[in-house]
Amino acid sequence: MAPLQINIERLKQNLLEVASLANAGSRGYTRTAFSAEEKRALEWLKQKLAALSVRVSQDAVGNVFGKWGNPDEPSILFGSHLDTVPEGGLFDGALGVVAGLECLQTLREHGYQPNVPLELVCFVGEEANPLGGTFGSRAVAGLIPYSAELEKKLNEQQFTWDDLVRAKRTSRDFRCFLELHIEQGSLLEAADKQIGIVTAIAGILRLAVRVNGRASHSGTTPMHLRRDALVDAAALIQKVNQLAKETNSDIVATVGEIAIFPNLANVVPGEAHLTIEVRGSKWEEMKAIEEAIREWSSRHIAADFAITVEKRPNSLSAPMQSCVEQACRDVGASYQYMVSGANHDANSLTALTDVGMIFVPSKDGISHHPDEWTSWEDIETGANVMLQTILRLADRYSRD
Amino acid sequence: MAPLQINIERLKQNLLEVASLANAGSRGYTRTAFSAEEKRALEWLKQKLAALSVRVSQDAVGNVFGKWGNPDEPSILFGSHLDTVPEGGLFDGALGVVAGLECLQTLREHGYQPNVPLELVCFVGEEANPLGGTFGSRAVAGLIPYSAELEKKLNEQQFTWDDLVRAKRTSRDFRCFLELHIEQGSLLEAADKQIGIVTAIAGILRLAVRVNGRASHSGTTPMHLRRDALVDAAALIQKVNQLAKETNSDIVATVGEIAIFPNLANVVPGEAHLTIEVRGSKWEEMKAIEEAIREWSSRHIAADFAITVEKRPNSLSAPMQSCVEQACRDVGASYQYMVSGANHDANSLTALTDVGMIFVPSKDGISHHPDEWTSWEDIETGANVMLQTILRLADRYSRD
Repeated sequence: MAPLQINIERLKQNLLEVASLANAGSRGYTRTAFSAEEKRALEWLKQKLAALSVRVSQDAVGNVFGKWGNPDEPSILFGSHLDTVPEGGLFDGALGVVAGLECLQTLREHGYQPNVPLELVCFVGEEANPLGGTFGSRAVAGLIPYSAELEKKLNEQQFTWDDLVRAKRTSRDFRCFLELHIEQGSLLEAADKQIGIVTAIAGILRLAVRVNGRASHSGTTPMHLRRDALVDAAALIQKVNQLAKETNSDIVATVGEIAIFPNLANVVPGEAHLTIEVRGSKWEEMKAIEEAIREWSSRHIAADFAITVEKRPNSLSAPMQSCVEQACRDVGASYQYMVSGANHDANSLTALTDVGMIFVPSKDGISHHPDEWTSWEDIETGANVMLQTILRLADRYSRD
Repeated sequence: MAPLQINIERLKQNLLEVASLANAGSRGYTRTAFSAEEKRALEWLKQKLAALSVRVSQDAVGNVFGKWGNPDEPSILFGSHLDTVPEGGLFDGALGVVAGLECLQTLREHGYQPNVPLELVCFVGEEANPLGGTFGSRAVAGLIPYSAELEKKLNEQQFTWDDLVRAKRTSRDFRCFLELHIEQGSLLEAADKQIGIVTAIAGILRLAVRVNGRASHSGTTPMHLRRDALVDAAALIQKVNQLAKETNSDIVATVGEIAIFPNLANVVPGEAHLTIEVRGSKWEEMKAIEEAIREWSSRHIAADFAITVEKRPNSLSAPMQSCVEQACRDVGASYQYMVSGANHDANSLTALTDVGMIFVPSKDGISHHPDEWTSWEDIETGANVMLQTILRLADRYSRD
């Protein structure tokens, strides 16, 4: 028997409805965190869920839930977010929510009866925002510690610390969490695969570096008397790139920010400020790169380092990965295992429950941009893999 | 017989009087081009010259002249400028003017009679300004071509094109031009010499470079799928530095400006803009460096180049150099021949007449900064070498 299939035309229609709620004056789609546009999209979702007769709720920070089945039992949770970066694309976040809605709708119209509750979630404020990215999911997972500074920022966004306390959930609320998302990279496209099964969310290590030289007149300072901070920074940039390449793993290292002083054509640069970012699925490998950078620098240049971000990688649930792989086979989708280099709400949920992620290809790896694109064929395959994964999970948990 | 000597106490007093005319609210000394402070300094100079009973005049763009001797004969011209960069030092420009004044005063009080006219000049607007650096001396040398855009800028500074026409002088007005200036570099200090005899003013070649990559998410783009514009720019920066070092000449090459896009910690840089500057005393060597940079780039990175500045080096008069060397021997000053990496009014004057330059050491090579410093002993030696050079030039020209 052919497996149950989602309705791609309805899914597409829903994605375009969400798109139409973005800021009309912007290129691409702008529904930034906590904006009127994000709130409109959440209202749209609540109406859609209500029409499916599932139990709709919104927590104290704005996250929307739609639960189908016994309200007192832990659910199979799935979803993503509806906020975007300014001038973002059609799919980032919205795909996971709309595909989850489509799974519920497909199951409803085929007379499915949930023995294990199924629950769609839309987290608020996933993209970079004044309260930090993945705000809604970190609130649910209880990952936001109190500070007076945080409380001030919460108040500026019309939240209170008490809202955070009330939004926090426990591991008894959920069986697992599943998120469908676009890859936002070009590995699947390059490998010609339809599905990425995510094994881990990469950790992030950021170093603020100050390279020290001596500013001097470019015309009157001969080469042998120079201490050129940009020449030293250039050597560091190349070393960082080389170290990441040499690991032959999933590790990436990037210098994405640079400022030099005084930044004038006729002055030898006296100081250079860089941000080095290392991402990878193995913390020891990431720290080894950091150590190698510091060691090389101590021998070759004058530089100070400060760690500004230190997020360890999170492995996703192995049984969840197997379940997604089996769903790919059910659907006949090609797939590969891969690390997510970007952060996601799924990362927050690892603090509470088993987590799985399904990626679909991004054309040319473009995301956070109006040109972000995934073919409707790939969207359909991804949503069907999500549906089969949910069915397999429900089957497994109902036998527990 | 011991040679005639300048009065270092009077010279120092005059330098400090000029310093007191700078903007009182600034660090260091601020008498920017065309400012009220520069105008006050020019008025001060006119009064000092008038007190010496020399013929004082001010041309249509504001340059001040004080001529001693037959007004119809070509003069031995010497001087520099009184404007400064914002928050500049005590000596840049002012030294050459005040030392010239001191030479005139010393000669006057010792009953010297000029067979060849001696003439002090103070050029306006030597430092970077909206009309371009070395404005006053380029006007005198007739080096400023007409354009509607220039006329607009002239008007904004309360000048007219006609003022420029009237300020222009001819080669029949001057026998030669001599400028005493601080080195603004650290070659003399490093070599422990009191005097630099300038052989040439370095040419300047500037290239605006755009390095092209592809912006992508730092977390989702593996190393082998990146086109990182900053990594390529870093290789170029190192190549430029290496090429200049390898020439083993006076050539210098600097990347003093950089901007990358989008300049975010989590985005692989998609584009980098650099300014490459090459200075040297030999145009063919400078163009060979440019050619080597372009050739290397065409093989290793994706970059576009545009020439933004192309000023050829100017050799100074060999007889003037000999004259300064003899003056150093008269005074008992240690010296070395050297290229001026910075531009000076002397450079403009090469279009009209024979030119010589005398450098005195700069502590730590610092200039254009409140910390700019030259010891009073070095100032005294420099002014005495200037005086002896003027006497030797006068002797030579009076025998013509």
